[in-house]
Amino acid sequence: MSPSDLPSGKLAAIHSPADLRRLSGPEVVELAAEIRDFIVASVAKTGGHLGSNLGAVELTLALHRVFESPKDAILWDTGHQAYVHKLVTGRADMFSTLRQENGLSGYPNRAESEHDFIENSHASTVLSYAYGMAVAREHSHKPGHIVAVLGDGSMTGGMAYEAINNLGASGRKVIIVLNDNGRSYAPTVSLLSKGLTKIRLNPVYMERQHRFETWIKRLPMFGGAAERAVRSAKAAIREMWEPPAFFEALGVRYTGPIDGHDIEALEEAFTSAMRHRGPIVVHVHTNKGQGYQPALDDEEKNMHDASPFDVEQGPPPSAITGYTEAFSDALIKAAEHDSSIRAITAAMPGPTGLIPFQERFPDQFIDVGIAEQHAITAAAGMAMGGLRPVVAIYSTFINRAWDNVVYDVALHKLPVVICLDRAGITGDNGPSHHGVYDLALMIKVPGMTVFAPSSVQELALMLHDALEITTGPVCIRWPNGAARHVKELDVGSGLNARLCRSHPTASVAILAVGKLVGPALEAATLLSSEGTEVTVWDVRCPSHIDPAMVADAARHSFVLTAEDGIADGAVGAALRQRLAEVGATSQVEVAGLPTEFIGHATPRAIHARYRLDAPGLVARVKAALRPE
Amino acid sequence: MSPSDLPSGKLAAIHSPADLRRLSGPEVVELAAEIRDFIVASVAKTGGHLGSNLGAVELTLALHRVFESPKDAILWDTGHQAYVHKLVTGRADMFSTLRQENGLSGYPNRAESEHDFIENSHASTVLSYAYGMAVAREHSHKPGHIVAVLGDGSMTGGMAYEAINNLGASGRKVIIVLNDNGRSYAPTVSLLSKGLTKIRLNPVYMERQHRFETWIKRLPMFGGAAERAVRSAKAAIREMWEPPAFFEALGVRYTGPIDGHDIEALEEAFTSAMRHRGPIVVHVHTNKGQGYQPALDDEEKNMHDASPFDVEQGPPPSAITGYTEAFSDALIKAAEHDSSIRAITAAMPGPTGLIPFQERFPDQFIDVGIAEQHAITAAAGMAMGGLRPVVAIYSTFINRAWDNVVYDVALHKLPVVICLDRAGITGDNGPSHHGVYDLALMIKVPGMTVFAPSSVQELALMLHDALEITTGPVCIRWPNGAARHVKELDVGSGLNARLCRSHPTASVAILAVGKLVGPALEAATLLSSEGTEVTVWDVRCPSHIDPAMVADAARHSFVLTAEDGIADGAVGAALRQRLAEVGATSQVEVAGLPTEFIGHATPRAIHARYRLDAPGLVARVKAALRPE
Repeated sequence: MSPSDLPSGKLAAIHSPADLRRLSGPEVVELAAEIRDFIVASVAKTGGHLGSNLGAVELTLALHRVFESPKDAILWDTGHQAYVHKLVTGRADMFSTLRQENGLSGYPNRAESEHDFIENSHASTVLSYAYGMAVAREHSHKPGHIVAVLGDGSMTGGMAYEAINNLGASGRKVIIVLNDNGRSYAPTVSLLSKGLTKIRLNPVYMERQHRFETWIKRLPMFGGAAERAVRSAKAAIREMWEPPAFFEALGVRYTGPIDGHDIEALEEAFTSAMRHRGPIVVHVHTNKGQGYQPALDDEEKNMHDASPFDVEQGPPPSAITGYTEAFSDALIKAAEHDSSIRAITAAMPGPTGLIPFQERFPDQFIDVGIAEQHAITAAAGMAMGGLRPVVAIYSTFINRAWDNVVYDVALHKLPVVICLDRAGITGDNGPSHHGVYDLALMIKVPGMTVFAPSSVQELALMLHDALEITTGPVCIRWPNGAARHVKELDVGSGLNARLCRSHPTASVAILAVGKLVGPALEAATLLSSEGTEVTVWDVRCPSHIDPAMVADAARHSFVLTAEDGIADGAVGAALRQRLAEVGATSQVEVAGLPTEFIGHATPRAIHARYRLDAPGLVARVKAALRPE
Repeated sequence: MSPSDLPSGKLAAIHSPADLRRLSGPEVVELAAEIRDFIVASVAKTGGHLGSNLGAVELTLALHRVFESPKDAILWDTGHQAYVHKLVTGRADMFSTLRQENGLSGYPNRAESEHDFIENSHASTVLSYAYGMAVAREHSHKPGHIVAVLGDGSMTGGMAYEAINNLGASGRKVIIVLNDNGRSYAPTVSLLSKGLTKIRLNPVYMERQHRFETWIKRLPMFGGAAERAVRSAKAAIREMWEPPAFFEALGVRYTGPIDGHDIEALEEAFTSAMRHRGPIVVHVHTNKGQGYQPALDDEEKNMHDASPFDVEQGPPPSAITGYTEAFSDALIKAAEHDSSIRAITAAMPGPTGLIPFQERFPDQFIDVGIAEQHAITAAAGMAMGGLRPVVAIYSTFINRAWDNVVYDVALHKLPVVICLDRAGITGDNGPSHHGVYDLALMIKVPGMTVFAPSSVQELALMLHDALEITTGPVCIRWPNGAARHVKELDVGSGLNARLCRSHPTASVAILAVGKLVGPALEAATLLSSEGTEVTVWDVRCPSHIDPAMVADAARHSFVLTAEDGIADGAVGAALRQRLAEVGATSQVEVAGLPTEFIGHATPRAIHARYRLDAPGLVARVKAALRPE
């Protein structure tokens, strides 16, 4: 660690939130500026979530000055905006290890700190945890507040509503900090958000609120009377605006909006919220990227999750690459002669490669917000009506809509195409961002065709087949990172597997899925150079195990299956079952990921660890062939 | 079919909604009474959903008179309230076959009628389909309205909010009929519902609305001016109440409340809703069980899904039986000496056996409404705070919270006990009520202990172990119907499998899970009487395959695994894998359910069809042992 990676100035003296509470108002403002510089410099080296953290500097400092963590629990929805929280809870010295293997997690992590509670980075869950913790504190009579911070984007997730509903009906006290940057991942798609924005942009409202508060403070009223007067007058103003009505209809008090970069105002708002008896929302306006011009200018969200960059320049414009690019191109090509195609995203148009589609076919593009369940069932409705919906979603987030895939799409045999990006090991975002379940789950959906392309050329072909040939639901899944390219593709292979390499004397067969086809072929080349010939099959369509592949594999004494998902009960297990059914006597080994949560590290490192790269596959074959 | 099962009177002349539209007002009222009698008589014979259908008679008739199905799509959330819809769309003659094998489905079914669209009976999905269909109609320029009927209970599900959000923001026209009987499955847990009830119970509001409408009709205004006056005055009144504010904050127009048993008022409301341009809610009050006193009196929801009964008496009080009863008793016993236990239900306190717990420990019981995701994550929050939450839920509904089980509960290693009732084949409620995925899914959750009891005594022991011994998340799953009882139980078997039957010369081993242990033992007795000795193991804890069981099974030439869930990639596949790992040369057969949607029929019939009953298992063993 170079000395420049270590915090200096005021930040160097902050080892816990208590240190923070000892600072004067002006000192905190100074600290905020320091933290901003530190984060920019640090993320420029390691990569990470930039804009959201720059937006949450004052918010986090104010929270940690008003509340006493960990006695008071500060819970972060999604968690990628918790860098400042990490810096002020004793982890500034380790910040240069962010998202590196064995380094700091990019999200709150309970092994790192007693100030961290939630490790899951799927959105919209925080209010449910908060409700549960409130129930627990009633029982334990443990003192302390529960503060849940969530973004405006997360408010479109159904779970957030389920929890608000439950909080409001039960009257249990949770302080909800609605961190509203009006941008979330993408322009948010909700009238509720529009309502919030309306407040944000309305100087009349802000001015009126300010004047009113000044005026009321001057009035010769004290105690209960003054408080009641303020309350009722505020309520009257509030009624004019929808978002308060939304929260209050559900039984949750609304306060705000508060300038999210005014520490004093924030501290005041949190202090009064602390005194309120029931659940309360503190609506805070922040600017994503505040204080760093390249991040403020970042309309395309390059800095939502940035790669290392130059501080002066800011990150280069984001480019869609690899499989995502191939998908983006192929979908546009398909839409050019099929106006019934609809591209649907759950608040991720950029990372799933749909921006070019949106620009080209704005009327055929639909962003439903962070609402994966609705995305899938809305697609089912579109397919019922004769459209060809294509839902692009991260592999890990389809877990949220599993019920909808099965009972809304597949039960009705609807031609919905589900495109899963970031399948398999994704890397530095940790356990809840890996896409390790999709293969195991999707092959269990009745009537679902599952495709796993092993090259960008194959992806284009599979999307074509999904839209033109297949009649029911289809899932196509691909990894992030660099993609494989092939020169020739046997067009029209449909649901069949592909024999990639064979040899008359081969006694070993590798049956590889998607991303593992490349390493399998490399392994075969290596083994061949040492005299062991290996047959390699690309499984291609794991929902429809090709009988020709099974029959051929059964002729080998050792069959190794390879996939970049959970090994238990997924494609390898299905292949083992089919081999047993044809009476194969081959020794079978299933290579895949263990049933464990896998921390952050590069996909390459993780694949090597679990012997899913070429050397790993070679080692597996050699171990199997070694005489006992 | 006896002649008395056939409709008579006016109903006999209704073969399609068009016939309905030819009736005069008084004739429809007469028909409604006839339909009520017919449904009571019919469901008394077949069993079925009674109260909800009696409540929806006028609502359904009005819908089919105002809208032209199937040109206009009438979509039913959950679907169990669609009996009247079935009766007036040409299926009255077949009604006596309701929920019988090869008979009418208890839910809308696309194979039965062009008037049916949605077959899934999981709640809160209908608005998403409706949104999707609205998008599709814009493209096809197909005329017709989209009408989505959902109950007040379904409004607590997050998906409903996701869809309202999307409908409101996009302005797409869907007519939402909020069928509010204020009861849903259980007393609804939501301030929104309380707000709706407030309207319902407030005679001032109803009277004022009525007087206002009478008055405005007499005014000498015409066209746009009158309409605007009515609109603005109505809006002013409306603002006083929260539920309209809730909908309107999200961009959806609110109208109502309408008396759901006044056909004329309903027709009028639907007709004006039809003329509105954007999404609109028509809030309708109905009485569950209307017109049949035993159903109206049915506070305990015996008639939500009734068994056959005597028409004069009504169904007998519901009794908790089998595994559900054992769970109910064991949980109360545990709570007697552990005040940290919390029982959580997602709107199903009755069927999951929690009513006695609620009566005994009201402060330790939590109903979160139809909100499975929130239920699981709230439980995670409670466990974080030191409580011992036990979530009781139907097996099929845990599919909705799979993401939360993995990333909220398991990632944090939290001691949440998830109790799945109605696991395996459930019978007459069809494809989306069978609990066939839980085993395959739960054994893939890192750190999850999965228990499948094979007797009520075992269930009690497993719940004890889950609460007293196990430290992380636990799932216990059991079937509905009659339960197995055993006299002796080797207490303290923990995570181990149990050897139930062995013989020195046995060449066949059956490794059975949960409900299949009974049939496996029966099969062994049958085979033994014919000279084939069979070893039987109770797998007990499929997440932790017992090495002793695997080692023993490997000594047999034929190993049959048996489970009442999907066979692909579940417990049998894991057993096959473990046997391969120890180098077993046994022939292995995995018995379970196919990757298909399974229609309604009795569990017994379905188990026989898939050779999962004792004769089926015997047949499998004999086929395997037969010389080629």
